[in-house]
Amino acid sequence: MSPLDRLCIDTIRMLSADAVQRARSGHPGMPMGAAAMAYVLWTAHLRHDPHHPDWPDRDRFILSAGHGSMLLYSLLHLSGYDLALEDLRAFRQWGSRTPGHPERGATPGVEVTTGPLGQGFANGVGMALAERYLAARFNRPEATIVDHYTYGIVSDGDLMEGISHEAASLAGHLKLGKLIYLYDDNRITIEGPTALAGSDDVRLRFEAYGWHVQAVDGDDLTQVSAALDAARAEGERPSLIAARTHIGHGSPHRQDTARAHGEPLGEEELRLTKEALGWPLAPAFHVPDEVRAHFARVGARGAALEREWQARRATHAHAHPAEHAEWTRWLAGELPADWDRKLTALVAESEKQPQATRAVSGATLNVLAPALGNLIGGSADLGPSNNTTIRDAGAFAPGRVEGPNLHFGVREHAMGGIANGLALHGGVRPFVGTFLVFSDYLRPSIRIAALSQAPVLYVFTHDSIGVGEDGPTHQPVEHLAALRAIPGLTVIRPADARETIQAWQTALPRRGPVALILTRQKLPPLSRERARRPAAGGGEATAGVARGAYVLSEAAQGVVPELILIATGSEVARCVEAQAKLEADGIAVRVVSLPSWELFEEQPAAYRDFVLPPRVSQRLAVEAGVPLGWERYASAVIGMTRFGASAPEAVLFERFGLTADAIAARALALLGRGVPRSAGA
Amino acid sequence: MSPLDRLCIDTIRMLSADAVQRARSGHPGMPMGAAAMAYVLWTAHLRHDPHHPDWPDRDRFILSAGHGSMLLYSLLHLSGYDLALEDLRAFRQWGSRTPGHPERGATPGVEVTTGPLGQGFANGVGMALAERYLAARFNRPEATIVDHYTYGIVSDGDLMEGISHEAASLAGHLKLGKLIYLYDDNRITIEGPTALAGSDDVRLRFEAYGWHVQAVDGDDLTQVSAALDAARAEGERPSLIAARTHIGHGSPHRQDTARAHGEPLGEEELRLTKEALGWPLAPAFHVPDEVRAHFARVGARGAALEREWQARRATHAHAHPAEHAEWTRWLAGELPADWDRKLTALVAESEKQPQATRAVSGATLNVLAPALGNLIGGSADLGPSNNTTIRDAGAFAPGRVEGPNLHFGVREHAMGGIANGLALHGGVRPFVGTFLVFSDYLRPSIRIAALSQAPVLYVFTHDSIGVGEDGPTHQPVEHLAALRAIPGLTVIRPADARETIQAWQTALPRRGPVALILTRQKLPPLSRERARRPAAGGGEATAGVARGAYVLSEAAQGVVPELILIATGSEVARCVEAQAKLEADGIAVRVVSLPSWELFEEQPAAYRDFVLPPRVSQRLAVEAGVPLGWERYASAVIGMTRFGASAPEAVLFERFGLTADAIAARALALLGRGVPRSAGA
Repeated sequence: MSPLDRLCIDTIRMLSADAVQRARSGHPGMPMGAAAMAYVLWTAHLRHDPHHPDWPDRDRFILSAGHGSMLLYSLLHLSGYDLALEDLRAFRQWGSRTPGHPERGATPGVEVTTGPLGQGFANGVGMALAERYLAARFNRPEATIVDHYTYGIVSDGDLMEGISHEAASLAGHLKLGKLIYLYDDNRITIEGPTALAGSDDVRLRFEAYGWHVQAVDGDDLTQVSAALDAARAEGERPSLIAARTHIGHGSPHRQDTARAHGEPLGEEELRLTKEALGWPLAPAFHVPDEVRAHFARVGARGAALEREWQARRATHAHAHPAEHAEWTRWLAGELPADWDRKLTALVAESEKQPQATRAVSGATLNVLAPALGNLIGGSADLGPSNNTTIRDAGAFAPGRVEGPNLHFGVREHAMGGIANGLALHGGVRPFVGTFLVFSDYLRPSIRIAALSQAPVLYVFTHDSIGVGEDGPTHQPVEHLAALRAIPGLTVIRPADARETIQAWQTALPRRGPVALILTRQKLPPLSRERARRPAAGGGEATAGVARGAYVLSEAAQGVVPELILIATGSEVARCVEAQAKLEADGIAVRVVSLPSWELFEEQPAAYRDFVLPPRVSQRLAVEAGVPLGWERYASAVIGMTRFGASAPEAVLFERFGLTADAIAARALALLGRGVPRSAGA
Repeated sequence: MSPLDRLCIDTIRMLSADAVQRARSGHPGMPMGAAAMAYVLWTAHLRHDPHHPDWPDRDRFILSAGHGSMLLYSLLHLSGYDLALEDLRAFRQWGSRTPGHPERGATPGVEVTTGPLGQGFANGVGMALAERYLAARFNRPEATIVDHYTYGIVSDGDLMEGISHEAASLAGHLKLGKLIYLYDDNRITIEGPTALAGSDDVRLRFEAYGWHVQAVDGDDLTQVSAALDAARAEGERPSLIAARTHIGHGSPHRQDTARAHGEPLGEEELRLTKEALGWPLAPAFHVPDEVRAHFARVGARGAALEREWQARRATHAHAHPAEHAEWTRWLAGELPADWDRKLTALVAESEKQPQATRAVSGATLNVLAPALGNLIGGSADLGPSNNTTIRDAGAFAPGRVEGPNLHFGVREHAMGGIANGLALHGGVRPFVGTFLVFSDYLRPSIRIAALSQAPVLYVFTHDSIGVGEDGPTHQPVEHLAALRAIPGLTVIRPADARETIQAWQTALPRRGPVALILTRQKLPPLSRERARRPAAGGGEATAGVARGAYVLSEAAQGVVPELILIATGSEVARCVEAQAKLEADGIAVRVVSLPSWELFEEQPAAYRDFVLPPRVSQRLAVEAGVPLGWERYASAVIGMTRFGASAPEAVLFERFGLTADAIAARALALLGRGVPRSAGA
């Protein structure tokens, strides 16, 4: 290691330790331990241009061990990204660009939001997958415009998490040879030595996944650099480089201890560390000039690489203008003109007979996939049930891209993390599916999609006790409420074929994740003859999905409703039936379809008051899920107050009081009329 | 294979296929494929007594591939469990004992609820762990009363799920040599051949986990039996026996295809299958007499084994009466007399200074652990933060039990599944901890705990933006709502030290899972001087946690409150502060602490109306989480409508409007008084 290398590495260590100390909060140990290998990766291998962090063909770098955020911030600052020393001084403070854990969008150069362990590992698999997919689609003999690596630093904790197992297994299977992870093997976790809780042979395990595995001393720059070279030379297998490091490297009393992990060194130990490393005790946040100069040279190399790529891009644009325009559109995340034009025929078709909304969703996907071009996705081994297969399009197969269909296997969590990586790589538009009840398995990834506003489309089917005989293990009852609880996630539960098509039309232009909630069972097409829109500016009444809620069936003409029935999905048709029964008793009832709370709450108050007039206080919400939250809109709720059961669907709706008769009876009771009232008298 | 063996195996196959056909729903392929190996396990290895399914030392059997439920039901029926042919005929029907997937409690002999893949795998690790723990605690040289194996059948899908990776890694580390899984290696998943989505070397992978791995032909009884013998002979390592099987075995057109997985064979194919196997075409559900006779002999052997064990138990009781009584109490799931007596001192101590509720929880655990004896648990590598360590008690270490502390590693999901296994094994009482934000990682296991009413105690700390600088990746905002959405789960968020102690006191006597939601930051002790209870039958006012909600601070004496402030956890103290501010303005305000919705909703209406009188319509709920659901109790809510941010805790409460001042201002606005009103005028 040259003195300059040493100086650079210690700068990273001390910037990190200083920032954590100043914040009086954070994780100094990881950045100090991983500084050497991160330095060699960033200065001698990673192809990036700090002044153009959005260069589409940059190598991606993912810090899966997100608690070591100061490692990343130090590298970004030194490399010349738009992240000043002042930003480092504001580490973990309100409004700063240096939050506690890396956040996509908060900091230039941060590719993904990490911290919850294992997520970054899976994100990288998604990025590597996107790269191969785009390369296969757009590279031409004259011009390679997609050709980058995805690097990451992963920790013991990442590798213990199940999501990393799932993602590693899939990455090995698909032969994502351009994925290269440095494993920060520091042998310390929060509770103590990793040996307390684990004795996996990690190398053997990754070989079993089909990975290329090497082991190095993480402080030996030559070894690390050679291993990175060898990893790139390996074309087929993803690479894991197990690098032995020392958490809190340089701290006389904390190196190699759990205490180095999650608390500041303290003024005294920080001083002792600086002394031990031969570092000036003051000022804090010291960056030697030689270090600045060195990183500037590295930055210049990155800028040159980007210029070379720009030349290839120009060649590509010249030789294949149409293809190039398509690629540009994909990267911009734009929809083509008239992207949903061909759905008109599907809407007409959809009115003809009862259909499961999952089936309509599949048909919609198959109309849109050719129109958009960049939809890519699949299911966690439930493709035939989720209707997530793009027909006649081929799959992403081991080592070769035959099409956009992804076989995730029974790996919901990795699917969620990979989808985030696909979405945030740019260029492709991911959709992923499983049963709604298993949305729990990928919930940590859904949360991060919402937090980082990754445009992932979730196709969650089998959305209620309508699942029937598979029973309560497979019947979601709490999942709609639980998904609605996530800020930044749009949840849409369409009520029939037309609403399902509209749900896709609404979902795709949105930034941020959207979950479609779809039935297993067939639903009748709903009549829009009695749909109503506001007198002014309401748009087409039937485009109600985009507004979150709409008056699907108004009370008999000219009559102010005594009661509003509000429902989503499969319960809407039952409410329309109940409306007819109540009208037979002379009661004026409005039916509101409310497929999306989030979309409805984005509407102006005037529209919301049009749909749910404040003066109509009797409102009965009906949903085959837990009632949680419906009190926001309704004065009473019919829902599921327990888990479901195993029986044919029709029996379950009957037994759980979710029939038109039960709805009508409850409505009468609410109004102080009818059978329930007399039964009680 | 003898003709009798063949006959028994085909009986299992055809009972399964007939039941699925009759239900017109289910999964025939797995039972048909795994029938042979399941048969040899159940008749030649498994030590169980069908007439005493609760025999404490029975071998446990877990069908992790729960979709193959008919395999289990067929075996239970034939073995002589209280499950009649009529029950099999009622497969998947309302109220039957044969639901779509196995459910603990619905069917005698079903140990755990399975179906969601990977869960059973982790449950078995918990059962094997419980066995070793109880054996170390209670076995004596004169009498071994705990000495059983835990067997399971796991599928491709189970092994792809991350939870199985986590659980396998921990089982290997802890050297759970009495855990033996048959891997139903049928090479078919729902989307097609397993090769579509995976190419792991499963055997190598399990060797890397420290497992003993064998491979056999799953249809060769001799091979399977020898492998089971060898697995038991291996004392240290858990065993995986990879058994090559054929899904839909015997079906001429569906064997070895994905179609065999999840739909009835159909009348025609069922007929062809019976012909191919030489099985009578009618009647359905045919059980040959020789098969009944053979299973009866096996049952007699099981009964004899149980009698031998009863003799050992008697010896144990005679030689160690006190120990035996303790063991009996543990098994019964009973708390000892005066189990919480020593908490009195802790309550007194807790009034003295501000404390984090996680710290009080840790202190409570440490008082209760010696009193109960059978508490066992730990954290997913956050023990020092979750305060889940039992002091001076040792840990469950590889191959030896030194104490009840479990180091789960960074494996939240396995922790959840293992906890379910521990709880449902019986004898031990598990608690598990992580940050609340990571409750998402084990959510699928929490759901199954709730569904099967497994008495697991979750210790979820770092419960809000009070996490501070770690930022939004680590700040739960939606998790309280999401947990409250799960039927059968009790969620308790105490407001100070005293409520925290009461929360433990409330949690432990409950059947079913309980989640404690605890702060990272210190909270002041709340005064109970103004607490109020109902005039009659209200019990001690301060025992309010047990009732879910209580009047913590009544409005100034004799005055009907104009407004009620309702809060949980760290927000309660802020509401008490706000109350003082409002009183200074002459406004009568009541503060209600509502630590548990579930407990509150179990109370009689009179009590609920006492706490939240219907006539007081102005009610402001305050919680540092999403408002979802609070409309049930309140007319307005102050909560988090976005993800948190990275900054010191006090800054965050200020920025997000969760201070006493902000609460008072909002209350004034609700009442149409004060600053906000004049500001708007």
